Amino acid sequence: MMRTRPLKVALLGCGVVGSEVARIMTTHADDLTARIGAPVELAGVAVRRPSKVREGIDPALITTDATALVKRGDIDVVIEVIGGIEPARSLITTAFEHGASVVSANKALLAQDGAALHAAAEAHGRDLYYEAAVAGAIPLIRPLRESLAGDKVNRVLGIVNGTTNFILDKMDSTGAGYQEALDEATALGYAEADPTADVEGFDAAAKAAILAGIAFHTRVRLDDVYREGMTEVTAADFASAKEMGCTIKLLAICERAADGASVTARVHPAMIPLSHPLASVRGAYNAVFVESEAAGQLMFYGPGAGGAPTASAVLGDLVAVCRNLRGGATGPGESAYAALPVSPMGEVVTRYHISLDVADKPGVLAQVATVFAEHGVSIDTVRQQGKDGEASLVVVTHRASDAALTGTVAALRSLDTVRGVASIMRVEGE
Amino acid sequence: MMRTRPLKVALLGCGVVGSEVARIMTTHADDLTARIGAPVELAGVAVRRPSKVREGIDPALITTDATALVKRGDIDVVIEVIGGIEPARSLITTAFEHGASVVSANKALLAQDGAALHAAAEAHGRDLYYEAAVAGAIPLIRPLRESLAGDKVNRVLGIVNGTTNFILDKMDSTGAGYQEALDEATALGYAEADPTADVEGFDAAAKAAILAGIAFHTRVRLDDVYREGMTEVTAADFASAKEMGCTIKLLAICERAADGASVTARVHPAMIPLSHPLASVRGAYNAVFVESEAAGQLMFYGPGAGGAPTASAVLGDLVAVCRNLRGGATGPGESAYAALPVSPMGEVVTRYHISLDVADKPGVLAQVATVFAEHGVSIDTVRQQGKDGEASLVVVTHRASDAALTGTVAALRSLDTVRGVASIMRVEGE
Repeated sequence: MMRTRPLKVALLGCGVVGSEVARIMTTHADDLTARIGAPVELAGVAVRRPSKVREGIDPALITTDATALVKRGDIDVVIEVIGGIEPARSLITTAFEHGASVVSANKALLAQDGAALHAAAEAHGRDLYYEAAVAGAIPLIRPLRESLAGDKVNRVLGIVNGTTNFILDKMDSTGAGYQEALDEATALGYAEADPTADVEGFDAAAKAAILAGIAFHTRVRLDDVYREGMTEVTAADFASAKEMGCTIKLLAICERAADGASVTARVHPAMIPLSHPLASVRGAYNAVFVESEAAGQLMFYGPGAGGAPTASAVLGDLVAVCRNLRGGATGPGESAYAALPVSPMGEVVTRYHISLDVADKPGVLAQVATVFAEHGVSIDTVRQQGKDGEASLVVVTHRASDAALTGTVAALRSLDTVRGVASIMRVEGE
Repeated sequence: MMRTRPLKVALLGCGVVGSEVARIMTTHADDLTARIGAPVELAGVAVRRPSKVREGIDPALITTDATALVKRGDIDVVIEVIGGIEPARSLITTAFEHGASVVSANKALLAQDGAALHAAAEAHGRDLYYEAAVAGAIPLIRPLRESLAGDKVNRVLGIVNGTTNFILDKMDSTGAGYQEALDEATALGYAEADPTADVEGFDAAAKAAILAGIAFHTRVRLDDVYREGMTEVTAADFASAKEMGCTIKLLAICERAADGASVTARVHPAMIPLSHPLASVRGAYNAVFVESEAAGQLMFYGPGAGGAPTASAVLGDLVAVCRNLRGGATGPGESAYAALPVSPMGEVVTRYHISLDVADKPGVLAQVATVFAEHGVSIDTVRQQGKDGEASLVVVTHRASDAALTGTVAALRSLDTVRGVASIMRVEGE
């Protein structure tokens, strides 16, 4: 049962992450051998541009035919760091069919097709590991699905996108507007030329789907995740947050309902108190805060992206699946037995910070307060400020459902005395 | 190979942690069954005081004969939450001999006899897991030995004792002295009647030995860990720290030497910059900061003690070892292949903050500076303050070895113009 021959690894993709994986496999070969109990050998590297010079990689290993590499028949582990849905999905499926275990860093694919891929892994008695898919180097998948396997996770609150955290941190610390902060992030290489996936929350939503699935032992599809980007966060919002003793973060929030019978997953900007551990996560760092029944509040912090950090997570998984192959075992597969319903955004309960531009005349506050009351949204505090015939009204609510808040806002907009709803921001982490 | 019969668990110890383990095993039995793939059954509970009422535990399971329980022959997993060296060590050894895997929360035993216990586990093809032994609920052992298995850890910097962190946080936030803060910790139940193990750093030293061993794949014995308690930290030290933009924490520090050829492990109070993530760890919380070559800087944060948090870690291990038993596999055992030498404290290199009481006359600074220079300790900053014919001199050094610093201090003490060395504090985390 124990294999003493080298374990053969096929690397699919050799960009920022893949080249680091290859480098570490070479420079730290002795350590990997000692930790696995057998040598691991890079048996092939599938790339799109074979002519590119790749330092430290034997050119004989390079191929453009990823499918042939995966089908070779002697591959023990396939590392997929191509990203995107296809051809990654087909290649991973083919890998399982040919007896390989798979390590992937592909959040989009896992969020969309995790269930099918896990089923394929199980059908062939192989492992599918993907620590690198969420929050880069931060050990998160393994702690959630193994360390907390005897506990009940009630909430996961995470900063899982470094680009947006860099932008929001910059806005917070310098008073810059969104565009200015984005420009700086782009100039420094923290944001891509097309930052849509990051700033519109698509990247974080994929991670939220993966985290919610593992945390709640329930399949959570990408479509189940409510998503709101952070492009409309303004310097004024940060000023409001400061007055509340808060800052603003783009959060991925996975919650079990109070009655335990359903779960929700969402991504949106939110105010969190400065005293919350997530508030002090600066720059492009990621951090995930986990609340569980027995363990209480845990936080995992580290670099959420980058070649070397992501490679660290990939290699940790590589060691694990190689150990499993040597022992003739598999690690924990998909755990979706709880099969809890995923509730829509309307059922999410939280607090809200609402800024209204209103007419500066008597009775407006009473009118506004009545609208909140009629929709069952209880007000915590109101602050009124007059300026040049107009006034602003800042309302902070107690906990209310998103549906009730949406109804309230629609009704407020229809009031003659409400000139506009300047901003609505959820308040989390209290 | 797959067992469908229930897995039988013997619980040794039923105090604060054990009773929580038993409670969760009962109340969350269905979840545990789903996650393991087979039911787990509490087969016996060994206690010292059988007459004590234990809510939710079938009295028929209670025994005072732990040895007989472990030898029964049908036990799959032994959970040891007795603590201390004996009888825990004999019971664990006996458990392996009778075919059980072991989950332990026993930091003292693991720090002292980890190698022998791991060897016993391996000899019998069973698991020894002990996530709960270090930093309570915080997943740390598993991330270090599995998630970072493909990386190279260079430093572990941890707040691993909640009692001392509570006391130091109190001193920092209120300006209280050590005794006053200790009294409050005792009154609130954060400190034991005899706080020696905590405040003198024995508890943290055991955890440092375990962490260093795992991080560096090297056996680190408790005797290898330099240990200094925090009973002599004063309000004046906190004032000095504040002037430096620092706070003071009792840290467990495990480091690989710059040349990679040796490691050190130590526990002592140290100044760390307020900007360091560990600086904002408040109250009785624990946090461990890990620096590794590829992943960069990671931090793990959470409750470091308490019945339920520790039980969460124990149950995570229980699920893992049960899965392994079902799959006929074992998890990663001891990894000590690197076998690096553990250097004595004299070779540790760090920065120092030294407060001297000196005569207030010309030439003193020159004399003092000469002593530092003669011992090869380079000075970063000096601040001189006169008061009533005496003066104080605060020296912050560049990085120097502990041996060089010790030599410097001895020479300073022999100067006529140096009335006393008020405090020496290491500066870490920069």
